[in-house]
Amino acid sequence: MFSHTLKSSKDFETANATLLTKAGFVDQIMAGVYAYLPLGVKVISKISNIVREEMDKIGTEVYLPALSPLSNWELTGRLNTVDVLMKTSGANEISKRKSTNEYILNCTHEDVITPIVQKFNFTYKSLPTAVYQIQSKYRNEARAKSGLLRGREFIMKDLYSFHTSEESLLDYYFNKAIPAYKKVFERIGIGAETVIAVASGGDFTDKYSHEFQTKCETGEDWIFYDKKLNQYFNKEVTPSKAPYILQDAQMQPMHEVYGEHIVGMKELVEFLKVPAEKCMKTLLFRADGTRIIAAGVRGNYDIDEEKLKKIVKAKKLEMLDEVTLKEVTGAEVGYAGIIGLPENVEIYVDESMENAINFECGANKTNYHNINVNWERDVKKPSKFYDIKIAMSGDLNPETGEVYEVFKASEVGNVFPLNTKFSDAFGYKYMAEDGTEKQVYMGSYGIGISRLMGIVVEKFHDEKGIIWPESIAPYKVHLLGLNLEDEAIKAKAEDIYARLNDLGIEVLYDDRQEVMPGEKFADSDLIGLPYRVVVSRKTADKIEVKKRTEKESKLVDFEEFKEILNVRN
Amino acid sequence: MFSHTLKSSKDFETANATLLTKAGFVDQIMAGVYAYLPLGVKVISKISNIVREEMDKIGTEVYLPALSPLSNWELTGRLNTVDVLMKTSGANEISKRKSTNEYILNCTHEDVITPIVQKFNFTYKSLPTAVYQIQSKYRNEARAKSGLLRGREFIMKDLYSFHTSEESLLDYYFNKAIPAYKKVFERIGIGAETVIAVASGGDFTDKYSHEFQTKCETGEDWIFYDKKLNQYFNKEVTPSKAPYILQDAQMQPMHEVYGEHIVGMKELVEFLKVPAEKCMKTLLFRADGTRIIAAGVRGNYDIDEEKLKKIVKAKKLEMLDEVTLKEVTGAEVGYAGIIGLPENVEIYVDESMENAINFECGANKTNYHNINVNWERDVKKPSKFYDIKIAMSGDLNPETGEVYEVFKASEVGNVFPLNTKFSDAFGYKYMAEDGTEKQVYMGSYGIGISRLMGIVVEKFHDEKGIIWPESIAPYKVHLLGLNLEDEAIKAKAEDIYARLNDLGIEVLYDDRQEVMPGEKFADSDLIGLPYRVVVSRKTADKIEVKKRTEKESKLVDFEEFKEILNVRN
Repeated sequence: MFSHTLKSSKDFETANATLLTKAGFVDQIMAGVYAYLPLGVKVISKISNIVREEMDKIGTEVYLPALSPLSNWELTGRLNTVDVLMKTSGANEISKRKSTNEYILNCTHEDVITPIVQKFNFTYKSLPTAVYQIQSKYRNEARAKSGLLRGREFIMKDLYSFHTSEESLLDYYFNKAIPAYKKVFERIGIGAETVIAVASGGDFTDKYSHEFQTKCETGEDWIFYDKKLNQYFNKEVTPSKAPYILQDAQMQPMHEVYGEHIVGMKELVEFLKVPAEKCMKTLLFRADGTRIIAAGVRGNYDIDEEKLKKIVKAKKLEMLDEVTLKEVTGAEVGYAGIIGLPENVEIYVDESMENAINFECGANKTNYHNINVNWERDVKKPSKFYDIKIAMSGDLNPETGEVYEVFKASEVGNVFPLNTKFSDAFGYKYMAEDGTEKQVYMGSYGIGISRLMGIVVEKFHDEKGIIWPESIAPYKVHLLGLNLEDEAIKAKAEDIYARLNDLGIEVLYDDRQEVMPGEKFADSDLIGLPYRVVVSRKTADKIEVKKRTEKESKLVDFEEFKEILNVRN
Repeated sequence: MFSHTLKSSKDFETANATLLTKAGFVDQIMAGVYAYLPLGVKVISKISNIVREEMDKIGTEVYLPALSPLSNWELTGRLNTVDVLMKTSGANEISKRKSTNEYILNCTHEDVITPIVQKFNFTYKSLPTAVYQIQSKYRNEARAKSGLLRGREFIMKDLYSFHTSEESLLDYYFNKAIPAYKKVFERIGIGAETVIAVASGGDFTDKYSHEFQTKCETGEDWIFYDKKLNQYFNKEVTPSKAPYILQDAQMQPMHEVYGEHIVGMKELVEFLKVPAEKCMKTLLFRADGTRIIAAGVRGNYDIDEEKLKKIVKAKKLEMLDEVTLKEVTGAEVGYAGIIGLPENVEIYVDESMENAINFECGANKTNYHNINVNWERDVKKPSKFYDIKIAMSGDLNPETGEVYEVFKASEVGNVFPLNTKFSDAFGYKYMAEDGTEKQVYMGSYGIGISRLMGIVVEKFHDEKGIIWPESIAPYKVHLLGLNLEDEAIKAKAEDIYARLNDLGIEVLYDDRQEVMPGEKFADSDLIGLPYRVVVSRKTADKIEVKKRTEKESKLVDFEEFKEILNVRN
């Protein structure tokens, strides 16, 4: 093997980048772009094979190009909405063909596969159908510093399904795709710690999608679990009821407080000496270019723009710019409140404010805040309160009243009901049994293969290195030969190596003679194969076996070792 | 399978594009960019596996990204010399990051792998080493109309080897890489018709490289075979001696002929009523920006600029522009000759002119040609004649005197001694045994996986469709069930299908009931699997077997069929 550990390599921001680099699995070519070295290729190939085996049960493999014409992305309207989209051109200093031949480097393939499947399947008889591929994707991420977790170039399995009805789509979605995904994560060794969470439908659907989230201390997502419902939610879509907080028994007189440049909740809390929970955060938005929306929430929360967008029934929501904000509220940024706003401003208040007494609220006057504001006395109490906040630890499910359990997690897969978004764009209809033309329903299902490799390392490592699950470890056994200058020991090590290979067990054999035992042990822990086997002067006619997950090694003979391996097979 | 034959699809310019599209193996996304449908994925995967098995014997697999930073390509000086290089950027209509993040889409990976291997292997102990990958490449081809033969995006196996000396490089090159390549082409079923031809070293080396060329009527290359030497040459580097042509017994008086606008050999031949063989074609070049070269060749040949460049020992050779040409010769384009050129013009004449008597030659005067020119009497006979022509059918090897056998072929692989071109660029030296730093030698070895799929179709097809070699056929057996409305026949067909699968034989089962037998037969011929098996009312308790390469089918029982398959296994 030409590559080896590089223990002195620099540390990256994430454990996966640091460990995979030091252990010689990958080499960073530039931010978000990695070369897979021999050990890395083996892991990618093992993950791919597991994914392929499970996907072959529910779809057919294809291989789509990374390049596509602009026209496909124009038709779906995504050319100008996907901000990570990369374009390529052959124009260069010596090419005479400047500005010609511009292509898209696909970041996903709905825009490519839909017209292909459309070409082949145009009657109800050939639907449903599903195709998948394992292939490289491109995203021009602004920040690509999470190792294999967020790449500019990454390997992905993407599956697309095509149906005659929403019912057929949901049947496939819940009864084929989701079980196949579960099987994949079980086989990779993260099944027990991976949950299915409700997530946003993104640009694709008004309804929810689902994410497979695996528990991980360094995960990017917060998952909220309702034990009563046995249901998981991604924070971004968690229905949230704020916990009750004790309110004053009596209303106090409302008055304005002058606080120069007191902008932002943290500054306000320090200045007023009241907790954020006693304040109201008010933000103003423009909806669909015309309507103006004021949204209020208990001061320790943030507004969830996706929730708000749905509640105000807007397609587009953007924060008011400073100039308009001043026109509307009369104040600079930081002093907005819900008292005395112009009549055309629609006010939406989060349920966390419903029972507030003596709360703070911006005065719509630069440098001023109102304190001891009370509903009805000082401002009309809204007839209805909403859930427009980003959920926080401690929140309850408004439906069940359960306090959520909250944990960090990393997304390892997602499934999207696309419905007719793409079939509409390409005019993909099918001939129904009654002879009429009907719209095709689609679903889209992703697993980031290279990302998954990174997440497994984030989950399974210790201070010494990686701890690979057996199913995707590059080799099962790390055979360390010590004292190899002794011909008898060398012969024994080579015999063990040959016998394991004969048994079909994959072995990485460290036969370096110039390297000290301590370094071999350190390398072995860093690389993280499931079984470490030592052959040395000390082991005599036995071999020393240690599992990467255990502390103690034991001396066994080859037959005993075979038993250990078989047990685990 | 979601895809199927599309017999009414339009014809492309090449057989491989037409047949692979109609048979449902690929779908063109745009010129030079293809989606691989399920049948196509199977062929690509079989070719890849054969290549991988052979490459694993001589190297280690890696997987490099398609994206790389501009800096690598700047260092090697290729950023501005490779005219098919594609660049990408994340700039788009909605991205705020315009003009940032420009990357190269690699068309080959010397510029990426060299610094990686350099990082890991810095002493003589770890060399030689070799790595390979199977991965997608990008080339902005001006014309990409040859189906899978010349793609803008294509799948390639590229291998790179690293050595302590030229000797070690050549040992690997001839004794490891070339035999492994031979094995690959044998296993794919084109071994007997694939030869190793000497080819140009291109930009990489002054010496030759080698190409694996497979005989193919529609091939893009001409191969010249010297039977005595048992050596093959690509036309571009074939040493060439023109065949003898009968010359006049006596010199005729030289004179000028007026021929207005008679420019070009074809026009001249018609106008003068002399064969092209009696004319001399003269072209003027600028070498390395300063020297001016006149090159003359028998009129039916063309000048080989690569040969000329080597002979005049120039790094760069370009045709004289019209203005300079007129300054030098005094004439417009089309009337250049070697008589009366300024003294600073260096004259190089091809050996095909050495014995010419009474030949035509441009008069260096617009609209005028000299006829009956003779050496010494009219113009100084060069002291030396050269081989500066592109070889033609009928030519002899100047060394052996053998008349070449000439055939058309398609390149299926190439091997390049890169020597120190890339290690120089990256300053890749190794610590030699004597403690000194020495330059690393490299080799580069390519096989176009997707191209190979296209070439196999070009070679092996008839008017009915593709004829796959067994080793890379997507399935071995095409089972056609006819009269399937009859439950007994259906049960029998399904039984055959199950029994073949149990034997590990890959079967494509055509169980369509709505399709007429004639169409099933046509589809089967089009798809081109090695064995066609029919189960129908007519076949009773037997099955009808026909090889795709044979005309006659025969009725056999299952045991006999197993024998047929075993024989071929």
